[in-house]
Parts: sequence; C-alpha cells; structure tokens
Amino acid sequence: MEKVDHIGIAVRSIDQVLPFYQNVMKLELTKTEEVPSQGVKVAFLQALNTKLELLEPIHPDSAIAKFIEKKGEGMHHVAFLVDDIEAEVKRLKSEGARLVQETPQPGAGGAKVIFLHPKQANGVLYEICEK
Amino acid sequence: MEKVDHIGIAVRSIDQVLPFYQNVMKLELTKTEEVPSQGVKVAFLQALNTKLELLEPIHPDSAIAKFIEKKGEGMHHVAFLVDDIEAEVKRLKSEGARLVQETPQPGAGGAKVIFLHPKQANGVLYEICEK
Repeated sequence: MEKVDHIGIAVRSIDQVLPFYQNVMKLELTKTEEVPSQGVKVAFLQALNTKLELLEPIHPDSAIAKFIEKKGEGMHHVAFLVDDIEAEVKRLKSEGARLVQETPQPGAGGAKVIFLHPKQANGVLYEICEK
Repeated sequence: MEKVDHIGIAVRSIDQVLPFYQNVMKLELTKTEEVPSQGVKVAFLQALNTKLELLEPIHPDSAIAKFIEKKGEGMHHVAFLVDDIEAEVKRLKSEGARLVQETPQPGAGGAKVIFLHPKQANGVLYEICEK
C-alpha cells in the first residue's frame, strides 16, 4: 500500500470545527457528503499531498457515534488507497491480516472500503480504499 | 499549511510492531532515531505521499509514555510541514491559536517542531514542523 488517501477524524459537529480548519489550519473544504451506509456525514479538507476527512455521526448507532462516546473526538483512522481492493484483500488475508468486514463496503465518493482490525496494528484503525 | 509531513503513532515497542508495517502494510522503514529532547525513539515508514512516524517512549516521564498510559497505543498526532516555522507561529498566534510550547523545539531529524493545543482541534494534536 503506497498512498495515504486521507486521515479520518471523528467530530461531534463538522460545522463547529470548520472555522478552525479553514482559518487556523488554512485547509480548503472541497466536499461534504452523507454516507448513510456508514451512518456519517463527511467533509474533506484538502492538503497538498493528502486529505483530512471529518466524520460526524448522523445517528447514535453509527460506529463513529460509538467511537466518540467511548474515546472522545479525535483521530479515527488512516486510509490507504489501492488500485484493486479485491486483490489487496486477498493479499492481506494471505499475510494473515484480520479484517473488520468480510468484503469491501460502499464508502464516501463511491469508494469501496474495508478496515483492518485495529488490534493487530496496536490500536490504529487502517482503512483500505479503492476509488 | 499545505503538506502532511507525517502521521505520528504511539507504540510501546517499535520492534514489536515493525513486522505488521513491513509485511502487511508493505511500508519501507527508512530511518530510526532517538530524540532525547522528546524522550522517544522514532521509526519512519515511507508511504508514497507522506510518512508514518512510530514513537516509542525511552523513559516513563516522556509525553508519549504518559499518552500510552492514559489512552493506550494508537494515533498520536498529524504533522504539517512549513517553510518558516517562526512566521507560522506568528500567524497562528494572530489567528488566536493556542500552542503547547512558547517557541519551536528540536524534533527528529534536526527539525524544529511546535504543537497546537488539541482542545481547539477537538482532540487532534497537530504538529507544525520545519526541516
């Protein structure tokens, strides 16, 4: 896996944190979108070489709502971009990697995404995505 | 701030997590270094567009040791690269941003680094660095 597509950040309210990212961090808001399958609203902020993805829960049962409930707002995941997610899943399984889902799921922007179980990465949640 | 220089990840033992990053994530280890001023040993893993920085505490009083004690291993900070950290600090202060240190400190690889207070970023610790 070569390219960090984005860094996911869990927030209670995108509207509330946007002024910090736009005025202090000087990052441009490029897109907002609801991803009902993940129970989130997302906002992408463009850096020169990667993106930040703000994730706001849209219902209290979503994984992001539960994450915030348990750990508070903050860094949630790091997403790596791959060309062929099916081939990557096969390779990961052959390396003995544990995945959170059985197969890739629909993500923001029509992407296909799957997550590596954070236990094997010492607490870091890695997403693999194909655009 | 434009470029994400690296994503910092707090770990108890670099040696213990390296096989995951090298064999499963297929990232190349490019450098390890001790940074006594920060109380850490660091290892850099190269992605195509940015780096992961593994941070292992070298004594129990270091900020990273305390972070792991309190929150467990996992994502610790996101570092943005700037050309002129003194000018950036001035700009940040003029925007009303709160900084953890008064002035930039020595970081890994001879960098100058300063951290934004995570409260204003809803729990995310942002580092600003100049190489």
